[in-house]
Amino acid sequence: MTQDNKNNWLDDLKWDEQGLIPAIAQDEKTGKVVMFAWMNRDSLAMTIDLKRAVYWSRSRQKIWAKGEESGHIQVLKSLRVDCDKDVVLMNIEQIGGIACHTGRESCFYFELSEDNDHNKHWQAVEPVLKDPKTIYKNK
Amino acid sequence: MTQDNKNNWLDDLKWDEQGLIPAIAQDEKTGKVVMFAWMNRDSLAMTIDLKRAVYWSRSRQKIWAKGEESGHIQVLKSLRVDCDKDVVLMNIEQIGGIACHTGRESCFYFELSEDNDHNKHWQAVEPVLKDPKTIYKNK
Repeated sequence: MTQDNKNNWLDDLKWDEQGLIPAIAQDEKTGKVVMFAWMNRDSLAMTIDLKRAVYWSRSRQKIWAKGEESGHIQVLKSLRVDCDKDVVLMNIEQIGGIACHTGRESCFYFELSEDNDHNKHWQAVEPVLKDPKTIYKNK
Repeated sequence: MTQDNKNNWLDDLKWDEQGLIPAIAQDEKTGKVVMFAWMNRDSLAMTIDLKRAVYWSRSRQKIWAKGEESGHIQVLKSLRVDCDKDVVLMNIEQIGGIACHTGRESCFYFELSEDNDHNKHWQAVEPVLKDPKTIYKNK
């Protein structure tokens, strides 16, 4: 196999029209899905090289190494893709036990609930473990 | 609260420019992430009403009730969204124990692996539980 083939694993993926792929982060210890974000080719290559989750921020249009401000790094344990090779699933160790910028363990903290009149609403069901102001104050 | 408010929970979500939202299906028993697909507003409303996963097929541009051909229905146990309210996470019971059209438990069966020359490739690491030909032969 020649050197030219070394990025075949990236070429094998189906990138969307913006050159992105959805990425799911799952905590290896708790099994919880803690985050969902997007990666471009460079950020996925960095994720593998650095063994930590690196995303592409669509709002800021830049590479975003998860935890660069908060310290809440996601250490990569293993990485899979799905049958269509268009979605990434990472098995990670969540440093600090907090994935969400709101100070919660997981970003998925709004559960669909019903009130007494059977009206549905999104209810926050996970506690804030750390005040976001203290997470980001040093930057 | 008036009748007009009953779909507020759908209005609260951030739909993308195609009117879609990414949806992750996680097996409630094993904790495995078994599938990733997309929903539009109608399919999410149907998912809640029918208590089973209903997606929007981007390739076929139609509503796709998961399991309609295979019988591998995903029974909805609970549903969450993330901090940005732009991703859905479903806790499901996977009927038949097979989520993937390839006959595997999960669609996420390709793991990034290295050969002896340190070349990376995607390796199928989950067994086929049922021949896809027999899953879909009755339709």
